Amino acid sequence: MADSQPPAQEVEDGGPTKSALKKAAKAAEKEKKAAEKAAKQQELAQQRAAAEVDFAQDNYGPLPLNQSQSRPRIPRADISHLSNRVGENVLIRARIQTSRAQGAKMVFLNLRQKTDSIQALLVLTSEKISKQMLKWASGLADESIVLVDGTVEKTNEPIKSATVSDVEIHVNKLYLIAGLDARLPFSVEDAARPLDPNRAEDAPETEGQDAKDANPQYSRILLETRLNNRVIDLRTTTNQAIFRLQSAIGHFFRQYLSERGFIEIHSPKLQGSATESGASVFKVSYFKGAAFLAQSPQLAKQMAIAADFERVYEIGPVFRAEDSNTHRHMTEFMGLDLEMAIEEHYHEVMETLDGMLKSIFSGLRDHYKKDIETVQRQYPADDFKWREGPEGTLVLSFREAVDILVEDGVPREGLDDFTTAQEKRLGVLIKKKYDTDYYIIDKFPMELRPFYTMPDPEDPTLSNSYDFFMRGEEILSGAQRIHDPKVLCEKMREKGVDPDSMKPYVDAFRMGCPPHGGGGIGLERVLMLFLKLNNIRRASLFPRDPKRLEP
Amino acid sequence: MADSQPPAQEVEDGGPTKSALKKAAKAAEKEKKAAEKAAKQQELAQQRAAAEVDFAQDNYGPLPLNQSQSRPRIPRADISHLSNRVGENVLIRARIQTSRAQGAKMVFLNLRQKTDSIQALLVLTSEKISKQMLKWASGLADESIVLVDGTVEKTNEPIKSATVSDVEIHVNKLYLIAGLDARLPFSVEDAARPLDPNRAEDAPETEGQDAKDANPQYSRILLETRLNNRVIDLRTTTNQAIFRLQSAIGHFFRQYLSERGFIEIHSPKLQGSATESGASVFKVSYFKGAAFLAQSPQLAKQMAIAADFERVYEIGPVFRAEDSNTHRHMTEFMGLDLEMAIEEHYHEVMETLDGMLKSIFSGLRDHYKKDIETVQRQYPADDFKWREGPEGTLVLSFREAVDILVEDGVPREGLDDFTTAQEKRLGVLIKKKYDTDYYIIDKFPMELRPFYTMPDPEDPTLSNSYDFFMRGEEILSGAQRIHDPKVLCEKMREKGVDPDSMKPYVDAFRMGCPPHGGGGIGLERVLMLFLKLNNIRRASLFPRDPKRLEP
Repeated sequence: MADSQPPAQEVEDGGPTKSALKKAAKAAEKEKKAAEKAAKQQELAQQRAAAEVDFAQDNYGPLPLNQSQSRPRIPRADISHLSNRVGENVLIRARIQTSRAQGAKMVFLNLRQKTDSIQALLVLTSEKISKQMLKWASGLADESIVLVDGTVEKTNEPIKSATVSDVEIHVNKLYLIAGLDARLPFSVEDAARPLDPNRAEDAPETEGQDAKDANPQYSRILLETRLNNRVIDLRTTTNQAIFRLQSAIGHFFRQYLSERGFIEIHSPKLQGSATESGASVFKVSYFKGAAFLAQSPQLAKQMAIAADFERVYEIGPVFRAEDSNTHRHMTEFMGLDLEMAIEEHYHEVMETLDGMLKSIFSGLRDHYKKDIETVQRQYPADDFKWREGPEGTLVLSFREAVDILVEDGVPREGLDDFTTAQEKRLGVLIKKKYDTDYYIIDKFPMELRPFYTMPDPEDPTLSNSYDFFMRGEEILSGAQRIHDPKVLCEKMREKGVDPDSMKPYVDAFRMGCPPHGGGGIGLERVLMLFLKLNNIRRASLFPRDPKRLEP
Repeated sequence: MADSQPPAQEVEDGGPTKSALKKAAKAAEKEKKAAEKAAKQQELAQQRAAAEVDFAQDNYGPLPLNQSQSRPRIPRADISHLSNRVGENVLIRARIQTSRAQGAKMVFLNLRQKTDSIQALLVLTSEKISKQMLKWASGLADESIVLVDGTVEKTNEPIKSATVSDVEIHVNKLYLIAGLDARLPFSVEDAARPLDPNRAEDAPETEGQDAKDANPQYSRILLETRLNNRVIDLRTTTNQAIFRLQSAIGHFFRQYLSERGFIEIHSPKLQGSATESGASVFKVSYFKGAAFLAQSPQLAKQMAIAADFERVYEIGPVFRAEDSNTHRHMTEFMGLDLEMAIEEHYHEVMETLDGMLKSIFSGLRDHYKKDIETVQRQYPADDFKWREGPEGTLVLSFREAVDILVEDGVPREGLDDFTTAQEKRLGVLIKKKYDTDYYIIDKFPMELRPFYTMPDPEDPTLSNSYDFFMRGEEILSGAQRIHDPKVLCEKMREKGVDPDSMKPYVDAFRMGCPPHGGGGIGLERVLMLFLKLNNIRRASLFPRDPKRLEP
């Protein structure tokens, strides 16, 4: 290693060489740096001493910035578990959602942790809680993070303003962990209020407009304002619950599939060519050339089947360069995709997808009741309904779905495909007739599907493909795929795709590929429609659309 | 809806209107299409009839393209479970890895499913197996997918060429599900052979060069050739095992964290500005503007902490526009990231990361023994070693790590940071001294870390940060982060980053953020180093580097 060589000779006859001068300059630079470091160190130590409170002596004040200085290992309590700990002394880290002084002798704090809140109070006493402490406590900004040392006490009557209503905290010590360095754009309490039900349900983008005639029990914060200040908006109990439910959907998806022999794959999002279907793709500068962002893992997961993985799933971002700003489109969303080999019939795939979705629905209902109820307080909705009995999920053929709309007065002629409004209407009609929010439409016309879709063996104008719906909106699209390279190339040409432009994909089938099928779900759509959030942005942590790339 | 209006009056005085002419043209078009459809339908039916074999009558031949025509629900057998089913008749879908005729009366097939293979044989008999059938069977191309109906029989002596060696299949019926439409670039059997151990271990890119003096027991297929034909390469038992292990790592990662109150988040990969650290980012054309691909979920996961999620993890692609083609760099890889609030000390985070990694190591060892052994047949390696006893994982400070290298002869002066070679050497020295392939280096100099790293409270030239190593290579980098906006802005300026260029990020801390820390693992690095695959591309399904965007 070059590093371990001894330094070269530095001084030659006739005075210092260039390298010696360099070295001296370097040494001076080093000394200067060391002096700067020492000064900084001292400054930091002073700052620390000034900020620090003596945990043993003082019972209020700000804590030092960097708390990694000792480790007494005192457990912090979870607000939602305090009802069973009456009389105990606990240590709690929480946000102050709101604070309120009552006269000169009491301060009430509403403390919040994720989906829960509890009341805490400081009462002036001669020994413990001083006037100064009360004043300091009442001056803490909303959304400050505090460390509270207090006793859990039963309340005389239920505290309506907190989710934990049967106990409260009598504060002994109160420390500030992190304060605020800016004005809040809105209060988290306001942000958690329901939307005005008198406004158009399908126009949530306008929520809070016409603030003058708004009812104060409803939130008046625009979705736009919320998303611009997403970090604050996400702190609402509603959003804490929404993203716990989002996480749970991924969990149930994986659990169902891994129990059935699927493995998780990760396919590249950077692609060499802009391919697949007509949907627009994003172009990326790739060193001296170009790459494209995958608009789905379709090609990769089919290649994984040709590579004998048999059953695969992927959870990953999907990119769509579509300039549409509807309530249900984003430029980046999470795809839950699967692909599997077929033994006898493509309904093996459809039934796996169906079973997986039902395991998500029942998983959420059975294990996340509290979170669903938390969301429903802000977004009231009927519980999501699906068939669980032996009759199974409602499966209609495309033709049967057309018949339902025709019966409702839509002329058959225009029904080569469904408009978004027709899909929504179909959802209403099916709910009325079959009492389910969840159903499958099977056997779509071949014309409506991408080139890789397997035609129906009896009627080549139809295909072995299906869409799944929740509350009248599509959440999943899938099909049996063509595994024969000759038929695949033929279909590509029919749809105007040059097989040579997708050579690695086509080659995978030339090397032998089993019959297979699959489908892809939009994670945020499932979440939005299960909870009836009415706008997909509410189901995405930091949503992206043609107009939004931040935060 | 416009669709439900009655059609407008079509014929007026004086002959057909434009709209009537249009309609007639449309009708003619429709008729033509219908005729085309009918012709196609007939053609398809003929093709099918020609290809189809009568399952009841014929006992060999090709099966129809689209098998979704009936659903007798006959279960397919898993090769690896056949040892316990001697005497039973089974139906198997498998690849023909190789086939061999013995005289005119016998054909041997080596059948493969994922990580397993079994011998099957056809013997000429008067009633069942005809000469024609034998000839047809022996003509099937390697890698064809077949459906085999046969009887499980004990073998007289172990079959060395198959992983299931105590039983074989006596074939009664044999059907072709998918044949080959091209020449194989290499045989899967050859691709599964070990590499020549006499070649340089750290230069696997050159594997198989100088083919003239190669030993036939070793594979001579270049990594480049493998990756160009990745779908075939992935069919080896080795690769089937590698990607089952990759899937398992994700599973153990999530299991450990969700048991400890973490939720999974999904942060956007499309970003409004090119930020974070010095690493290069990819630029994306975004409608009329530009976006950038996230080089880590760093900013988003910290914002999730400021948004009160407390403990979050993410599994997602990470993009690095670095023009480096080493054995351990890719332009896209999978990041396993976590971030969590700290109560007392940043070692809470370090210990969580440590516990999580150890749960992955023991999970793989305890539940995936067979897969690890499968990989070791092609890539021989010592079992990965880590400390499991009460002494805990080896944690060295950066200074202690420097001392070890100095003791080994490296001059202290050059050791402000480690070179890749020094890291590797350190791994060897630590293995010798402590008998572990896994260790942590804590307390890195502040200078070496990004702006968001929390300085050490005692010595501001050091930081509350750590790297984790496997076999002398870094797999995880993490730290406590600065949660105070003023200190954060100061550090940003020191590192030459304008706080205004990252406003949404800085604002998150202005609204109050708890102390927190985290880390990010490279999934493929963990997999590569656990198995000692020597090149990260072997741990990625479809790897991406500056020179590779396909397949």
